[in-house]
Amino acid sequence: MHNSLTALLTQVRDGSISVADAALQLREAPFEDLGYARVDHHRRLRQGAAEVIYGAGKTPEQIAGIVDSLQRSGQKTVLITRMKPEAAAYLQERAALTYDAASRIGIVGPLPEPDGDGKIVVATGGTSDIPVAEEAALTAEVLGNRVVRLYDVGVAGLHRLLASLDELMGARAIIAIAGMEGALASVIGGLVDCPVIAVPTSVGYGASFGGVAALLSMLNSCASGVSVVNIDNGFGAGYLASMINHMGAKP
Amino acid sequence: MHNSLTALLTQVRDGSISVADAALQLREAPFEDLGYARVDHHRRLRQGAAEVIYGAGKTPEQIAGIVDSLQRSGQKTVLITRMKPEAAAYLQERAALTYDAASRIGIVGPLPEPDGDGKIVVATGGTSDIPVAEEAALTAEVLGNRVVRLYDVGVAGLHRLLASLDELMGARAIIAIAGMEGALASVIGGLVDCPVIAVPTSVGYGASFGGVAALLSMLNSCASGVSVVNIDNGFGAGYLASMINHMGAKP
Amino acid sequence: MHNSLTALLTQVRDGSISVADAALQLREAPFEDLGYARVDHHRRLRQGAAEVIYGAGKTPEQIAGIVDSLQRSGQKTVLITRMKPEAAAYLQERAALTYDAASRIGIVGPLPEPDGDGKIVVATGGTSDIPVAEEAALTAEVLGNRVVRLYDVGVAGLHRLLASLDELMGARAIIAIAGMEGALASVIGGLVDCPVIAVPTSVGYGASFGGVAALLSMLNSCASGVSVVNIDNGFGAGYLASMINHMGAKP
Amino acid sequence: MHNSLTALLTQVRDGSISVADAALQLREAPFEDLGYARVDHHRRLRQGAAEVIYGAGKTPEQIAGIVDSLQRSGQKTVLITRMKPEAAAYLQERAALTYDAASRIGIVGPLPEPDGDGKIVVATGGTSDIPVAEEAALTAEVLGNRVVRLYDVGVAGLHRLLASLDELMGARAIIAIAGMEGALASVIGGLVDCPVIAVPTSVGYGASFGGVAALLSMLNSCASGVSVVNIDNGFGAGYLASMINHMGAKP
Amino acid sequence: MHNSLTALLTQVRDGSISVADAALQLREAPFEDLGYARVDHHRRLRQGAAEVIYGAGKTPEQIAGIVDSLQRSGQKTVLITRMKPEAAAYLQERAALTYDAASRIGIVGPLPEPDGDGKIVVATGGTSDIPVAEEAALTAEVLGNRVVRLYDVGVAGLHRLLASLDELMGARAIIAIAGMEGALASVIGGLVDCPVIAVPTSVGYGASFGGVAALLSMLNSCASGVSVVNIDNGFGAGYLASMINHMGAKP
Amino acid sequence: MHNSLTALLTQVRDGSISVADAALQLREAPFEDLGYARVDHHRRLRQGAAEVIYGAGKTPEQIAGIVDSLQRSGQKTVLITRMKPEAAAYLQERAALTYDAASRIGIVGPLPEPDGDGKIVVATGGTSDIPVAEEAALTAEVLGNRVVRLYDVGVAGLHRLLASLDELMGARAIIAIAGMEGALASVIGGLVDCPVIAVPTSVGYGASFGGVAALLSMLNSCASGVSVVNIDNGFGAGYLASMINHMGAKP
Amino acid sequence: MHNSLTALLTQVRDGSISVADAALQLREAPFEDLGYARVDHHRRLRQGAAEVIYGAGKTPEQIAGIVDSLQRSGQKTVLITRMKPEAAAYLQERAALTYDAASRIGIVGPLPEPDGDGKIVVATGGTSDIPVAEEAALTAEVLGNRVVRLYDVGVAGLHRLLASLDELMGARAIIAIAGMEGALASVIGGLVDCPVIAVPTSVGYGASFGGVAALLSMLNSCASGVSVVNIDNGFGAGYLASMINHMGAKP
Amino acid sequence: MHNSLTALLTQVRDGSISVADAALQLREAPFEDLGYARVDHHRRLRQGAAEVIYGAGKTPEQIAGIVDSLQRSGQKTVLITRMKPEAAAYLQERAALTYDAASRIGIVGPLPEPDGDGKIVVATGGTSDIPVAEEAALTAEVLGNRVVRLYDVGVAGLHRLLASLDELMGARAIIAIAGMEGALASVIGGLVDCPVIAVPTSVGYGASFGGVAALLSMLNSCASGVSVVNIDNGFGAGYLASMINHMGAKP
Repeated sequence: MHNSLTALLTQVRDGSISVADAALQLREAPFEDLGYARVDHHRRLRQGAAEVIYGAGKTPEQIAGIVDSLQRSGQKTVLITRMKPEAAAYLQERAALTYDAASRIGIVGPLPEPDGDGKIVVATGGTSDIPVAEEAALTAEVLGNRVVRLYDVGVAGLHRLLASLDELMGARAIIAIAGMEGALASVIGGLVDCPVIAVPTSVGYGASFGGVAALLSMLNSCASGVSVVNIDNGFGAGYLASMINHMGAKP
Repeated sequence: MHNSLTALLTQVRDGSISVADAALQLREAPFEDLGYARVDHHRRLRQGAAEVIYGAGKTPEQIAGIVDSLQRSGQKTVLITRMKPEAAAYLQERAALTYDAASRIGIVGPLPEPDGDGKIVVATGGTSDIPVAEEAALTAEVLGNRVVRLYDVGVAGLHRLLASLDELMGARAIIAIAGMEGALASVIGGLVDCPVIAVPTSVGYGASFGGVAALLSMLNSCASGVSVVNIDNGFGAGYLASMINHMGAKP
Repeated sequence: MHNSLTALLTQVRDGSISVADAALQLREAPFEDLGYARVDHHRRLRQGAAEVIYGAGKTPEQIAGIVDSLQRSGQKTVLITRMKPEAAAYLQERAALTYDAASRIGIVGPLPEPDGDGKIVVATGGTSDIPVAEEAALTAEVLGNRVVRLYDVGVAGLHRLLASLDELMGARAIIAIAGMEGALASVIGGLVDCPVIAVPTSVGYGASFGGVAALLSMLNSCASGVSVVNIDNGFGAGYLASMINHMGAKP
Repeated sequence: MHNSLTALLTQVRDGSISVADAALQLREAPFEDLGYARVDHHRRLRQGAAEVIYGAGKTPEQIAGIVDSLQRSGQKTVLITRMKPEAAAYLQERAALTYDAASRIGIVGPLPEPDGDGKIVVATGGTSDIPVAEEAALTAEVLGNRVVRLYDVGVAGLHRLLASLDELMGARAIIAIAGMEGALASVIGGLVDCPVIAVPTSVGYGASFGGVAALLSMLNSCASGVSVVNIDNGFGAGYLASMINHMGAKP
Repeated sequence: MHNSLTALLTQVRDGSISVADAALQLREAPFEDLGYARVDHHRRLRQGAAEVIYGAGKTPEQIAGIVDSLQRSGQKTVLITRMKPEAAAYLQERAALTYDAASRIGIVGPLPEPDGDGKIVVATGGTSDIPVAEEAALTAEVLGNRVVRLYDVGVAGLHRLLASLDELMGARAIIAIAGMEGALASVIGGLVDCPVIAVPTSVGYGASFGGVAALLSMLNSCASGVSVVNIDNGFGAGYLASMINHMGAKP
Repeated sequence: MHNSLTALLTQVRDGSISVADAALQLREAPFEDLGYARVDHHRRLRQGAAEVIYGAGKTPEQIAGIVDSLQRSGQKTVLITRMKPEAAAYLQERAALTYDAASRIGIVGPLPEPDGDGKIVVATGGTSDIPVAEEAALTAEVLGNRVVRLYDVGVAGLHRLLASLDELMGARAIIAIAGMEGALASVIGGLVDCPVIAVPTSVGYGASFGGVAALLSMLNSCASGVSVVNIDNGFGAGYLASMINHMGAKP
Repeated sequence: MHNSLTALLTQVRDGSISVADAALQLREAPFEDLGYARVDHHRRLRQGAAEVIYGAGKTPEQIAGIVDSLQRSGQKTVLITRMKPEAAAYLQERAALTYDAASRIGIVGPLPEPDGDGKIVVATGGTSDIPVAEEAALTAEVLGNRVVRLYDVGVAGLHRLLASLDELMGARAIIAIAGMEGALASVIGGLVDCPVIAVPTSVGYGASFGGVAALLSMLNSCASGVSVVNIDNGFGAGYLASMINHMGAKP
Repeated sequence: MHNSLTALLTQVRDGSISVADAALQLREAPFEDLGYARVDHHRRLRQGAAEVIYGAGKTPEQIAGIVDSLQRSGQKTVLITRMKPEAAAYLQERAALTYDAASRIGIVGPLPEPDGDGKIVVATGGTSDIPVAEEAALTAEVLGNRVVRLYDVGVAGLHRLLASLDELMGARAIIAIAGMEGALASVIGGLVDCPVIAVPTSVGYGASFGGVAALLSMLNSCASGVSVVNIDNGFGAGYLASMINHMGAKP
């Protein structure tokens, strides 16, 4: 069942569990307080996807502590984003960690079988956008999706993009990743009929302002069906694409 | 069939139509050039939703001309966004226009029957956000969705939001609309397991900078599953929510 | 002869005129001081194009005074940009003024015969960009160019742009005008081999920030051969395109 | 007595001290000029709290010199903020310094007994905000306050925050520290009836712009009773919270 | 008793009320849903101060509806901020409204007797800041505070400020309101030992950027004990100052 | 005598006046409190120039009240900046006001005889900058300076500027006023050896951002001897230029 | 022939090649997919200039792979911009690379003979702008142009610029490169009658904001014929100047 | 004689030198072209102060080359700003260089005797502003001025500033240097009657934005007689102050 919280609340409404008992469950279950972190053991119940660790600004010891807590609570695969090489080295001595240095993604435990409704396409404007793209693609794969990668298909050479029209047309969701002027999202958005998640990247220089130019370009897209996540936020795009690609499973 | 373009391309691949004939069809069909506008008659085929008129910066005569062109091409219902009262008055003398002054939405023709997979929730932080919310809600309704409105459920009075937890939990997609600090998207995003489309509004003053504060807040949401559209872009959110709410119909 | 200043300087170098006499000519000729304006009678000599009046921030009386000064100095056609209707009304009683209200362009005197090397294409992303486009197109026409107008060819419906590939490919210079995300310049820049002058417009809302989104997008274009002028600066684009379209005439 | 300056001025008004003598006292007492710094020995009299050293941009020698000057003037405990490890190492050889590397807080001398009216709560949105939180908490402790730490209670997992409702409800002042979208301040502000001091942090990436997103979010909080200090300014928040927590002692 | 929610929760903890009954009370009491607004009848219990109406962006009819709902729930005095003259005129025909046009503050019902611990000083840098100052002062008075007004005491004529040193020194909280360079907050903050709430105003021109210069100046104040609210947010400052001025009453 | 405050302080140091008496004089003299304004009667003593009224944000009644207060204190000529036509009309019925509508400068009383050391040059880049230039020029004239006006000498027609090299070279101080790219200040600064006060104006459009482009340009001037005042701040430039032009009179 | 694509399309129109065959050619020819890059072998045909490698964000291995792919496709000279020394060292062991460390330009293969219509002038405001200038100059030389370098001719010493008036007057296109206030482009633009391509540089400090001041200054240039490329984009300027300098060769 | 250029031009006007000879002198004299720099030997004639070397972005070899050129042209003392330690080390082996590491100021040759009209005061808000202050003070000393240093007199401890009122009152020009909120310039500007040159510094953190907060604060100063130079531009302030302090010497 996809959402235990709703189940719990339904039981309350139906009277099959008392309010006090439900409150007790909610109060006891949700998290483990490590002092520096309140680890959310409840998230899979509440949101249908397990807790993910945002590695930036956490010490290797803190990351290891949270992984440990999650594993103790029964979570099999743990995704760690923005993980520094030092933290990866520290963790690799303690757990079965796969680490991709370019995207700084760490994965503890096995990749699940894909169970999504269709395919997710991850497209980039250039070669330099690949690290962000891999963050998105690996996130989607950890969450059980089949992913198609189309890299370096920026609009300055439109034929490179049009050559992959089939893959674009067959996607359930497309993640369009680009720095500089970020036009990729608009051009793709005008071609397809599935949601396009635009990820501006900090690739560029001068008046790209660390991704602001691409961000504004994407927010102002004249194509419909395009929404935007934070600059370089490959994880957020992968997570959302997975959610959309699992809509068929919802009741 | 949801996508005639794919059909056409499939025929090409299968050899049931020659490339030359397909090219001819593509070249002839797509738009009518009115001089001031190239009206896209092809969009329903390509993207599964009919052409929408962005009313800002167009004269009443231009809007009427485009409506006329679309109707001649067989489109039954035409949505016009950001429509000024003058344009509405002008059009009302020429066509069956329904006009909502607060959201500046005009609809020519009948509303379709809802055919989406589930419900779309449109929530606002405050009363002042309602015009943007209606742009989103009416857009979704024109595109065939059932819509639940939850207005004035901002986070400063959390119990007002929590009282509607049932509606939130039952949605296929949620549109979270807020100005000022825009925290509504994050709080909803942390509670539910469906896509949340965040719409910052220009409601506020001083350091809200016309919606920038809410925009940045939403882009930086610590909740997963949240993506963002342009400030005050109720239409974009409604369109995307409808797309997500029709995923079940995709092959 | 296209540049009298160079001629004058050449005479100085060749000894056919003394430095003192040349200095005298330069000192006497260049401008008439009206108190509120120093009207440049020398510009056609120095730059190959006559003085143009920037109408914003000038009173109708000042504009009329400058027109008068230019006509007295022998200039046949005078272009006035950003001219308010009041100023146009005032001037129309005093001179043979043609006025285009949408682009706020006023022209005193006859349009010259086109004498450029080829054609200039003026393309816009949408209908709302037309006023800026007309400022560019009329400027180019006043300066002696043949102009092709392609309006509403934005990238969200790529086929509308590709249908005009012939006109684009045959241009000596292209002016790409767009608001919102401004992707038009990059897409055109990737298709053609002539200079593309990008004009961001203030068309849009929210995070378009009055044209900043399009401006940044264009400055970061991944296509080569693209340069940018100020937001809404149709005049500047038309002037530069004309300069490029008259290169063949240069020695 | 909380404010000797007022006392002095009162004596002047009452005639119990001549203006000249008062002026002399004010002129002689207030500071020691070290050339590179004018050390304020007068601050406890004027403001009820001793001088604090802002360590950034000062050399280890300068910091040591100011500590020395303060100790000679009778100040028992000296707080040093933004202190680099080199400066700490240099000072530790010369004085009884306690140094917290994460928050870069140095304390020379003993911690005072808490003498505030109640408790101050320091809450953070995430683990990465802890260094700023410790700057606030240690500042408050140096100034004589009891402090409760609630770390990693961000709004994306609302139950983690609600589980500590008791501590929040029992505070005299709450310091809400968050980066990214900064929604924590608004949510807490809507739940409690004591002043909430919001501290945006530079935690985040992309469109967080080094804390600007959280700053704007907090400035636009729709909850009442919330005010804001500079990004990462844990010290300022701790100081102000202490001031509020000592209001009962004021006459 | 200042906080009924705490009381209710305490009863739950003590067992004098069942969780279910408490939940019922919370669920039933909190707000009335008017469709366009969820009026918070619970706020006085939860936060110790009654609901305030933010008038901007609400129609006169909506404001009247909310006033009516609050009065029906037993609230005697209703404060309305940012109220347009039209709304005031509309309401004055229906209720006992006092309206101050400069500050756009409306008050329905009688002013309460001051019950704060001491006095609140409201100081402005110039004459043009008075409307914001009155919003702060009237808010504080509606919430039961004695207010001292010191207007036009900007730092360019320091003696004007120093002449009121007595009033400043005797305050429980000071609201420092200034546009332009906003130095007033720092100078006051350096002189006194009570909390200073800084309110930047949009007074100024050019590089004041609608109050941004003053806002940044205040956020970077080198004086301790200073915190900041949004530009022109007199209400927020008055509310917070009242909260601080009622600390003595807290248990 | 140019500075009575210094005189008073010197008397204190020399013992020719007691500290108490001096304090009394300072306390009594400085300002008149009108409630909405603290009128500085002391400024001529302290700063060598009489009080000036900043008209923006003041009602006609307030302006008249301050003029009255200044005249009662013996000030003969009163300068009012940013004065709206309504205020001028109101005042003209009550006092001998000269009003310049373009620069919004009002002058009550007679212009003084010039007593500066030399001449002040006021130069503008274009015709549209004249209102700001007149604010500067009239301010300088009210303060007793001889002013030379050089209008419309922008760098796009360098010969127009070079033709006035004599006037530039003979100035004691130059006020360089320009909008758009603001290059005028740098070019003048490179030619002369007296202080250049740069005034960016809000003249321009698009990426001039209301004067920000010119402001930044001037702040980054590669010429030495250039300093900058606020956008459109003709008054500030005129005041400072007058100060510099009266340096010879200082002891 | 300068444009094979046009040729191909002409053949299609004339019936000398079938649409299917043309599509096949387009589909097969254009690029080689290396996984991390889609190398555009088609660009010379489409745009008249060979593919250029943007070195930033690419690994040495990726750059070498793309060079290899281009050479295999028959391209003789390959330009690499923003190339790090490590990448240069790596490539120098594998190919005939010329590398300029200051401008980070790498060139594989021989420089072509100049075949442009005239000369391109590259001018800088200061010595610190030289790296960007060399990027522009070397790009232009790789594309077959004669280049004249005028370095350190900033407007603060106008005679340094005027001394090179002959070179400026004789150019087909001028690249004006400057940081700080960027006035160089306006002053040159006012003197000459050929296109001026302005390149803002990140040279400067403080309020130059990494080149933003120069960028805005150039966008707002009051001189006609000036257009702008991205900050530090010497390559883009060199490419565009070359395009203009080869206009005579166009049919 | 202070300005040889004027002298030369006067000779031209008087006929005592021919235009041709004058032109020759101007053409020959002004600068030496080193390829990477055009060294201005003419500046002392034109502007009354010798050439200064801006060290940032120049190699040690380039700096040494320019010093050499200036010395050959007869300049005795050479000021080098923003000089890196490496460049200083390199130069110290070749010339008599005095180097101040904190302010990165290098001086080749002897300091001149002060010949200004009075004294220049350099005041800072804090200890961290001293490097910028020394850049200003040393520049002023190199240009022949007596300098009084008042460091750490920020407005948060007003008595520290007021204790130095005598020095402030006796200055011909004051340089007010501050980071954070930059209020120092306004407070000093309100106290004195000489020009105040405000220098914002990049000292601060968070919302100081590298000096922008102080810059805006200073530009919006409500005190008259205040003008601003670029962030951290101690040199510019010292140069301008020297110019003002030598006004008495002007004819």
